[in-house]
Amino acid sequence: MTPYELIRAKRDGGTLPPAALRGLLTAYARGDVPDYQMAALCMAVYFQGLDGPELRTWTEAMLHSGRTLRRAPGSPARVDKHSTGGVGDKVSLCLAPLVAACGVVVPMVSGRGLGHTGGTLDKLAAIPGLRTDLSLAEAEGILSELGVCMLGQTEELAPADRRLYALRDVTATVDSIPLIAASILSKKAAEDLDGLVLDVKVGSGAFMRRREDAERLARTLVDLARDLGCPAVAWLTSMDAPLGRAVGNASELLEAVDVLRGEGPADVRALTLRLGAEMLLLGRRAGSVGEAEQRLATAIADGSGLERFQALVRAQGGDPAVLDTPERLLGALQSTPVPARGGGHLASIDTLAVGLAAVRLGAGRTRIDEAIDPGVGITVLRRPGEPVAKGEPLFTVHHRPGQDVAEVCRRLASAVHVAESAEPPPPLLLARLEASR
Amino acid sequence: MTPYELIRAKRDGGTLPPAALRGLLTAYARGDVPDYQMAALCMAVYFQGLDGPELRTWTEAMLHSGRTLRRAPGSPARVDKHSTGGVGDKVSLCLAPLVAACGVVVPMVSGRGLGHTGGTLDKLAAIPGLRTDLSLAEAEGILSELGVCMLGQTEELAPADRRLYALRDVTATVDSIPLIAASILSKKAAEDLDGLVLDVKVGSGAFMRRREDAERLARTLVDLARDLGCPAVAWLTSMDAPLGRAVGNASELLEAVDVLRGEGPADVRALTLRLGAEMLLLGRRAGSVGEAEQRLATAIADGSGLERFQALVRAQGGDPAVLDTPERLLGALQSTPVPARGGGHLASIDTLAVGLAAVRLGAGRTRIDEAIDPGVGITVLRRPGEPVAKGEPLFTVHHRPGQDVAEVCRRLASAVHVAESAEPPPPLLLARLEASR
Repeated sequence: MTPYELIRAKRDGGTLPPAALRGLLTAYARGDVPDYQMAALCMAVYFQGLDGPELRTWTEAMLHSGRTLRRAPGSPARVDKHSTGGVGDKVSLCLAPLVAACGVVVPMVSGRGLGHTGGTLDKLAAIPGLRTDLSLAEAEGILSELGVCMLGQTEELAPADRRLYALRDVTATVDSIPLIAASILSKKAAEDLDGLVLDVKVGSGAFMRRREDAERLARTLVDLARDLGCPAVAWLTSMDAPLGRAVGNASELLEAVDVLRGEGPADVRALTLRLGAEMLLLGRRAGSVGEAEQRLATAIADGSGLERFQALVRAQGGDPAVLDTPERLLGALQSTPVPARGGGHLASIDTLAVGLAAVRLGAGRTRIDEAIDPGVGITVLRRPGEPVAKGEPLFTVHHRPGQDVAEVCRRLASAVHVAESAEPPPPLLLARLEASR
Repeated sequence: MTPYELIRAKRDGGTLPPAALRGLLTAYARGDVPDYQMAALCMAVYFQGLDGPELRTWTEAMLHSGRTLRRAPGSPARVDKHSTGGVGDKVSLCLAPLVAACGVVVPMVSGRGLGHTGGTLDKLAAIPGLRTDLSLAEAEGILSELGVCMLGQTEELAPADRRLYALRDVTATVDSIPLIAASILSKKAAEDLDGLVLDVKVGSGAFMRRREDAERLARTLVDLARDLGCPAVAWLTSMDAPLGRAVGNASELLEAVDVLRGEGPADVRALTLRLGAEMLLLGRRAGSVGEAEQRLATAIADGSGLERFQALVRAQGGDPAVLDTPERLLGALQSTPVPARGGGHLASIDTLAVGLAAVRLGAGRTRIDEAIDPGVGITVLRRPGEPVAKGEPLFTVHHRPGQDVAEVCRRLASAVHVAESAEPPPPLLLARLEASR
């Protein structure tokens, strides 16, 4: 079948034969299918979807456009976590070293901030000298030494997915659940994993605002992972409020280190322990969630998780001493409080607006080539369900001296809905999904 | 709005603001919007459609990417006809000079054969020396002298539509009713018409096989023409059998000349008279269909229609004497009959298969740069509803001596369904539509 015939068949709701679809995607990866045909195909997929076998073929074609992380025979189990992105989500930074300290290898390929959501790579980049643009050979070396590494997607890993993502980004075909799933898993499959934990965010600060969309994505991801031979567990978790208190790159990094020190906000710690427990179970380093959480708590209490993170920072070119000197990470900042316009109970936070306020402050990008300021950020002082007195600070904005933050403060104040009474907020951990069959 | 925002809005079923849509299409016409964004937009339009104002904006943007045919002040009414394409449809060739002979100017911009359907330009090109690649200046000259000209779409006429059509052709976005309508009318609007008659084919040999699709296209076309300030009438006509007896470029040209001589098949003559009557009514050269058909019949009987066609051939570089010497047009041919496999009544003809058999014979193209043989063709001997005796010829295939036509004959024999009894065939003229409101 020609590219034209495949586009037409998908447009008409047909199922594409695996060999023909693989041929098309392989040709695209080689540069032999023009972007305009892939754009039309992606839009047809947006409307008509992809079934299980099509999705597997699509993902494998993206995967095989690049290399994979090698592993030595007999090396320990490898498990990774992926989050679909939210505001204040710094879990990867404390989770990966903790799980590694418990004996499961974590080869974490992460992304930069996207839209209103932060990215693990940007948070790590707050550490002077730390490199995330590791070659696969470098990553393999660090991984065999420390059991954990954190790197960005390079030209070696699923390069066709990278090109396709850039195309989808300018053709309004990003938010297609099968294409999202294929993009995520083509990179994760390149890590050659024994298991994958997926944190699918849902709520006002997530890409999936509606629970049914998030469930559909989670279901698609775990089933696709199974089809690729990788056992996976997905958690639907609430993004109806920022995770933790810190929003901003260096401050989120510091909050993750707090968790490794046995401190930090309860929600960040709870999510880290639960996702970590799933990783230990998939890596067969624990027999139950209780046992797994206990192991992780021990790795916090005895400092081995923090030590592993410090070793990681050192191995990737940073100086872990900066983790003890926040002022070196943050630089000179001024603080401006955002007071509540009225009193009552905090009913809801428009978490998207908080994420966009952070971007406006300089903590994120509006263009792909924009520089970000690792130090600026927002502290979230009140959470949904909590009482609020008129005039009391809801947020603190941390900004450069002289920076005009009036608009940021105005948007943050508007992002909070204070009511006479408030429902209790939804639980953080909403639902757990495994592959069907 | 950026191209991305417009694609996304259309994808989500929104209506695009005219100014923003115009800006996008104008930028595309200038080469400032990449093909991959237009491909994604066209696929979104395939699924979500375009409403009246969007369609008008789209068509005008394509129109304004080029020039228009000028007309002198006080010049006679200009009316054209467009057919959506069928098998054996040679009506334009006799219709245009006849209508011109009755005092309505016909500036006919035509196309080449497309898929299984023939094209007026290919039929004219059977005349040695005849040029259809006229500049607009040349066309204006011939038009003011003869009241009729026949030319192809050049780079001067709606060039952005030409580029967009080529893109749609490789991205499976051709068969979108609004995009078909915009493409047709952007070229027709460039003729600066007082009226337009649309022959929308429906049936097994048409692009629209289903009556409801053809009606939707006809309705879209007449309403869009009205929005562009051009009164239009559409006829839904049957393409459940080839039109007339001749399928093939030179033989169709000769059959059209037969009509101008008062001969030729009844269906070709009837369709020519009815469409011509609509053109005279739109051009205010007749007060009723009866009066208009009478004028046209007179222009056949007194030879003025044929004379006008001969003058047109001469003006465009051909020698009209060839119309009297078929062997010069056809070249050396052999004939092979296609006998009926059984007896009874001819219940239906797969007219698409007849068109494709003609292409396979060499009368049409499978690639845009392919040469065609103007002489080869098929004579259709039996029509739906007629009795058929086993072994009697249903078609005659006219081919080059030594040409292997076994497969063509096999396909033609299979294209005919002979049954014990047959319903009377549908009428040729199915329904007439004018713009609503």
